[in-house]
Amino acid sequence: MSLQDDLNAIPGVAARDAATHGFVFNHTMLRVKDIQASLDFYTRVLGFTLVRRRDFDEAKFSLYFLVLVDDPAQIPAEEPARGQWLLSQRGVLELTHNHGTESDEGFRYHDGNSEPRGFGHICVSVPDVEAACTRFEQLGVAFQKRLTDGRMKDIAFIKDPDGYWVEILQPTARV
Amino acid sequence: MSLQDDLNAIPGVAARDAATHGFVFNHTMLRVKDIQASLDFYTRVLGFTLVRRRDFDEAKFSLYFLVLVDDPAQIPAEEPARGQWLLSQRGVLELTHNHGTESDEGFRYHDGNSEPRGFGHICVSVPDVEAACTRFEQLGVAFQKRLTDGRMKDIAFIKDPDGYWVEILQPTARV
Repeated sequence: MSLQDDLNAIPGVAARDAATHGFVFNHTMLRVKDIQASLDFYTRVLGFTLVRRRDFDEAKFSLYFLVLVDDPAQIPAEEPARGQWLLSQRGVLELTHNHGTESDEGFRYHDGNSEPRGFGHICVSVPDVEAACTRFEQLGVAFQKRLTDGRMKDIAFIKDPDGYWVEILQPTARV
Repeated sequence: MSLQDDLNAIPGVAARDAATHGFVFNHTMLRVKDIQASLDFYTRVLGFTLVRRRDFDEAKFSLYFLVLVDDPAQIPAEEPARGQWLLSQRGVLELTHNHGTESDEGFRYHDGNSEPRGFGHICVSVPDVEAACTRFEQLGVAFQKRLTDGRMKDIAFIKDPDGYWVEILQPTARV
């Protein structure tokens, strides 16, 4: 038995249906209170590129789609190629901004990690987790868990402006 | 001004810091009540492949990592290459199963779309949204929004076993 055979034998795991060919896990959507703060965090701190904004003025919300790619030059410059590229990618982050929440002092979104729980976190993997965390400290980023906290010394969790947890890990440090 | 220049001029958007080179938006984590039901949904209905399970028996939880790729043969068969590959990918789905929740009749996770809101949904893009939705109907999948519901006729939302929303769209149908 290979490792994959073992996993495929876990109750619930099904063989792939050919009808799912071409399916792509495209994006994860989070609501954010202050889009300026969130764009700053995801672009400046984590390196995402903003690829699309869609405004729904009547319904008073806007959507922002970001990708984290080393070579933003690969992103088609014009529609419709740009949108088709975006919606065919894995690992897109969609931020929803309901207009006005940023100036509502008591307004908060729920990060999913206290009751009622559900969504847990997103994760950004990095080439050097020590260097990345040192830089986050220098940038004044909030930490939920530093590398030195707890039992798992190879992962950290930082917090985005809404308090959503972002796990930071290094692929080569975990086996 | 190009479209990208326009987006880069939005308040909050920062130029990419070279220190973020190699950063990858690796995964999104959701807690699930009944892992067997969730594995069935994500593998059989959506075509994901289970790549890793990690059991934490003392703390009574397990983690399941899934990817949605057309060619699972590309997944390295053995560790440590397998784990390094997994943690370097975009678009990984991590499911957390706290042992015992599946047999706790009243237990529910929060999908984020009623108060307190926060996380909204994940999205799977598909080559043919009409065909995909017809198949979901045939499989008895729960819908939050059919293609024919509401104003946006080009997207649907199905629900996973915990009620998390999964948007379904076709990249070429949206411009």
